[in-house]
Amino acid sequence: MTSSDCLALLMQHDRFLILTHARPDGDTLGSGAALCSALRRAGKAAFLYPNGQTAAHFADLTAPYLAPAGFEPGFVVAVDTADVKLLAAGWTGAVQLCIDHHPSNTGYAAQTLLRAGSASCGEIILSLIEQLHGAPTPEEASLLYVALATDTGCFQHSNAGADAHRAAARLIDAGADAGALNRRLFCSSSAARLQLEGRIFSSLRIFHEGKTVFAVVTQQMLRECGAAEDDCDDLATLPGRLRGVEVYITIREQDDGSCRVSARSAGRADVCALCRRFGGGGHVLAAGCTLEGPPDAAVERLLAALEEQTA
Amino acid sequence: MTSSDCLALLMQHDRFLILTHARPDGDTLGSGAALCSALRRAGKAAFLYPNGQTAAHFADLTAPYLAPAGFEPGFVVAVDTADVKLLAAGWTGAVQLCIDHHPSNTGYAAQTLLRAGSASCGEIILSLIEQLHGAPTPEEASLLYVALATDTGCFQHSNAGADAHRAAARLIDAGADAGALNRRLFCSSSAARLQLEGRIFSSLRIFHEGKTVFAVVTQQMLRECGAAEDDCDDLATLPGRLRGVEVYITIREQDDGSCRVSARSAGRADVCALCRRFGGGGHVLAAGCTLEGPPDAAVERLLAALEEQTA
Repeated sequence: MTSSDCLALLMQHDRFLILTHARPDGDTLGSGAALCSALRRAGKAAFLYPNGQTAAHFADLTAPYLAPAGFEPGFVVAVDTADVKLLAAGWTGAVQLCIDHHPSNTGYAAQTLLRAGSASCGEIILSLIEQLHGAPTPEEASLLYVALATDTGCFQHSNAGADAHRAAARLIDAGADAGALNRRLFCSSSAARLQLEGRIFSSLRIFHEGKTVFAVVTQQMLRECGAAEDDCDDLATLPGRLRGVEVYITIREQDDGSCRVSARSAGRADVCALCRRFGGGGHVLAAGCTLEGPPDAAVERLLAALEEQTA
Repeated sequence: MTSSDCLALLMQHDRFLILTHARPDGDTLGSGAALCSALRRAGKAAFLYPNGQTAAHFADLTAPYLAPAGFEPGFVVAVDTADVKLLAAGWTGAVQLCIDHHPSNTGYAAQTLLRAGSASCGEIILSLIEQLHGAPTPEEASLLYVALATDTGCFQHSNAGADAHRAAARLIDAGADAGALNRRLFCSSSAARLQLEGRIFSSLRIFHEGKTVFAVVTQQMLRECGAAEDDCDDLATLPGRLRGVEVYITIREQDDGSCRVSARSAGRADVCALCRRFGGGGHVLAAGCTLEGPPDAAVERLLAALEEQTA
């Protein structure tokens, strides 16, 4: 559907309930809250469905928008959610509109505004708000900046193209305090997280003259650092900081003694082929699998498989 | 001077020698090399003065532009250089034009194009190139993206305003491969650097419920990690990642057994006052001093002084 069709559809309805995805990030929460605010400015009742998995440092962003108990929606919208499995049970069959940027969107909603070329869902919401109101409010701009900065890794990932930067410029012009929001998003690690990164970087296992690196996260490390699940976001990207690395693999020991493997390729190697050998899968540049046994054994098996693959 | 005056001045001359500042970063090197390329496109001879302190990972950016031995310049330009003390000896009295964005520029050049509102010198060069040629070449765009991303910390620092993002968008449109350049700039730590960060984060000393944090870097840590001076950039910023921190201090043990102290404030505290008590100085939010004795003693003395200051 076009964005004009989407706006027309929104304007025909009222009493909006906006759904965000499981393990919500800045994009789904910022997009949902900004859409809520813009719909309210258009005279509508609009609320976010309370997402119980919202991290503490995002809670104040969504607080003004949370639906009260017993709210009966007239129209249900999901934002930034590719699959109905990522929505709270109870709403899975009821989504009338989905606004998303994931190419993998399964089309579960009655209607979908999909812009797979957008780095973030926030940019799609920004464009809707600009059509509806001319420009976002400072608060909407801040929420959408959070969305954009989250999904581009503060403009570091390769999805941060010219359009993402142009959206950032418009959001800052509209009042987003990018410096303060960046500090909050990217310079606010818990002591446990920093401790854990310290342990991970101190114990990297580097092979093939730096082309292959393993990061190992054991249950003991998590315990000793006092790390909770919130402290374990994006661990798979950490060993990718090594200069010249081609394959980087993060091995996380599970409660049950097995190891969860996240493998990444810097471009040349096919880590999906690697993970498929162990019953896993994914994409060429990012894949995963689960191995039985301790982390040391997992490193050995993966290393042997990698060497076979490139032999 | 206006940018039109600056362009007119450049077009009147030939045989350009472009100077970059001591311990050159991506901004001075990217700005200088892009200006060189644009002057060559305008039919001029133009070279960079070889800067012996150029880091290995920047060497290929500047290689096509380095002045041959014995090159006799007709016009000398300094870029991104606030003070003549930062230039190679021999050229300090000869600078005919300086193009810079530092508010602290001392006005040492015969003429100065100063844009103190620009996040990077690269944006000033971009605007000159756009006036001269319409748009940068892909290579110039890449060089200027390096400049811009370096000085804004990949758009994370508070100087990354709307204009910086708009410049980034134009550079990407002109052919800069931002994703690849970001990986090179921000995901290419040496193994020694990662090891060192690991040791630093594993041994943070956290006080006042996380409002004060010390990072300690000893000679032994540097030795054990195999860290060279190149691996020690920006260590002072690392403990600033702690959520809610107000004062963060990095203590680096020197060869001679003294400690170099870099103190930073997240906004409220005056670390300049703190460092002045120990014979140092700086700015309210970033200051330094040197203390005799081992790191542990330095932590104790600074902690006591901080507590007195806030008592």
